[in-house]
Amino acid sequence: MLTLPSLRVDPHVAVTACAAPREASRSAFTAEFGGNAHATIEDLAADPDVEAVYIATPHQMHRDHATILAKGGKHLLIDKPLAVSMADADAIVEACDAAGVHLITGPSHSFDQPVLAAREMIASGRFGKVRMIHGLNYTDFLYRPRRPEELDTAQGGGVIFSQAVHQVDVIRLLMGTRATHVAAMTGAWDPDRPTEGAYSALIGFEGGAFASITYSGYAHYDSDVLQDDIGELGTAKDPAAYGKARKALATVSSPEEEAGLKSTRTYGASEAPPLAPHAEHFGPVIVSCDRADLRLTPKGIEIWGDTEKDFIPAPPEPSPRAAVLEGLYHAIRSGQPPAQSGGWGRASLEICHAILESAETGAFVGLKSQTQHQSKEEPVA
Amino acid sequence: MLTLPSLRVDPHVAVTACAAPREASRSAFTAEFGGNAHATIEDLAADPDVEAVYIATPHQMHRDHATILAKGGKHLLIDKPLAVSMADADAIVEACDAAGVHLITGPSHSFDQPVLAAREMIASGRFGKVRMIHGLNYTDFLYRPRRPEELDTAQGGGVIFSQAVHQVDVIRLLMGTRATHVAAMTGAWDPDRPTEGAYSALIGFEGGAFASITYSGYAHYDSDVLQDDIGELGTAKDPAAYGKARKALATVSSPEEEAGLKSTRTYGASEAPPLAPHAEHFGPVIVSCDRADLRLTPKGIEIWGDTEKDFIPAPPEPSPRAAVLEGLYHAIRSGQPPAQSGGWGRASLEICHAILESAETGAFVGLKSQTQHQSKEEPVA
Repeated sequence: MLTLPSLRVDPHVAVTACAAPREASRSAFTAEFGGNAHATIEDLAADPDVEAVYIATPHQMHRDHATILAKGGKHLLIDKPLAVSMADADAIVEACDAAGVHLITGPSHSFDQPVLAAREMIASGRFGKVRMIHGLNYTDFLYRPRRPEELDTAQGGGVIFSQAVHQVDVIRLLMGTRATHVAAMTGAWDPDRPTEGAYSALIGFEGGAFASITYSGYAHYDSDVLQDDIGELGTAKDPAAYGKARKALATVSSPEEEAGLKSTRTYGASEAPPLAPHAEHFGPVIVSCDRADLRLTPKGIEIWGDTEKDFIPAPPEPSPRAAVLEGLYHAIRSGQPPAQSGGWGRASLEICHAILESAETGAFVGLKSQTQHQSKEEPVA
Repeated sequence: MLTLPSLRVDPHVAVTACAAPREASRSAFTAEFGGNAHATIEDLAADPDVEAVYIATPHQMHRDHATILAKGGKHLLIDKPLAVSMADADAIVEACDAAGVHLITGPSHSFDQPVLAAREMIASGRFGKVRMIHGLNYTDFLYRPRRPEELDTAQGGGVIFSQAVHQVDVIRLLMGTRATHVAAMTGAWDPDRPTEGAYSALIGFEGGAFASITYSGYAHYDSDVLQDDIGELGTAKDPAAYGKARKALATVSSPEEEAGLKSTRTYGASEAPPLAPHAEHFGPVIVSCDRADLRLTPKGIEIWGDTEKDFIPAPPEPSPRAAVLEGLYHAIRSGQPPAQSGGWGRASLEICHAILESAETGAFVGLKSQTQHQSKEEPVA
């Protein structure tokens, strides 16, 4: 639903088929797009009209779906996180490798225009090295309607797999080097929603740079006040909506009723949101370089230099998620995939697991499966 | 110089004597206050007109000065950090204990009115437990004029001893329980100023709560923009002063010249700043409790509740540093010291050392000398 507005307007995308278990979704699809609405992944994998598939199914289903589709020769865009377990991530990367198809992990907020623009500024060398990055985000994530497995860490629930992966993707892209080790503390303090809802983590990088990320999905405070009052999806916040998630949840009496509330937001059950006017974002990010600090906002990049300040508006784009679709297009048509490959997604997932492990064991966790995006020679998974 | 404006107006304080090696400082003192301007600590310790002494000498001198003054029966207010080494901190606490004098560690930003007010709100129980605290601060600390030892970590230089100790004090006071373990990463990325200038640290507390603190003293970004454009000392920032510290430092050609620049800010060499109109602060702090997030600003406390927002202005006070002088006064006159005792200061110093050790070893560091301030029975050091 969140990527649909961008799919509709992208000149390089023709939506030709879908797979959905719900009849309502399939009917809505054929009514809007025509084409083929399949009931199973296998049928979609065999559809000759399909060149690439966007897998937006629940995390724990990614492996099965990706494996079937890769065998069918489809290029894949897989929603973050790539999978829940590292074994599943490995299997997905291997399946795409074996089939010779492109695999991109996204959309994630590392595709946001201000993040990509900041990465280019950093790569130009004008600010010197990146030394430290700080990101924070305070949301009501844990109180939005959830399916039961979204509140069970073992099934990929909680904020580490869904939310930390965004912050990790963003800082990895900005840093440009390989992450080396992680220390973290997590919080799971609402017994009615028994999964991690908050964390703070430190991530070390090659060369001694480090990042710190802090997230609360229990938040009352809304860090979007630091982002021009623009929400994660690039739209202006409604001040009258304060406390909306908690208020709505207070009217729900069972997990089934809550899951029902969530399914009303599925394709075919309600309208997709309109195309957002601003870039998406994932909370304030400050990048400290030798000769400047860069502060990312949904409107662009504040450059705080040695003696002067400047503001560079984010480049205009047709939709907030244009970059990920552009990435998929260039991978398939020009063989030039974006940084966010399968191996990239696996590396971010490894950091999510390291956050959980560090918090559990009270020890730093070393990383083994990290990639960096600077090299154009990075193999496509 | 920074505490002087508050000393001048405090109704419980009569400034009767000083000790200073510089003749200019002593002359200025007697011209302003009359009384006794001593050239040595020993003479000050023997002065019968002196009941309590504020020790604002460089960190590494605290032990010698405190020991002499405690033996003379003087109550002590010692600038943070209490000392550089834990052995010195132990010796100071023991000397004051043996002499039966009160020892208070301060001023630190844990005495700021919004911090004290937030602590009382939290202690009332209306928001439930404190689960997570986040603090950040971006300053040009490392580029202000420094004496050579302030750029040498072994002598107590760098941002860990001077700056982390503030953040640690603030979060310990807000949290209200004992800290248990620390993980940290630090940055020392300017070879011309070879000491830690930045850090991010995680601090665990009894009961599973945790805090994250991030600081850059290399910063171009100024986090006071998040604090109503009010600086650390409670005065409005001058937008035209952007980059001032770096620009001034660029004109300096030797460590001696730089130290000379700093000494022009010593008592007797220039005017003390005027009394600040707002509370002091040490960067944005967000306290996440079960039923509200509290955001501290120099003007008061934003309360972000389950369904409503509120703002509680900080209680008016005669000067930003009134609380620490009030604490000293009540300790001496009523036997009721503030939380920030000698043992308290030693505990915050232990966390500073743990930050350095964790960053050095890449391991979590357990804490052994922690206090909490909730207990009124906490022994006075």
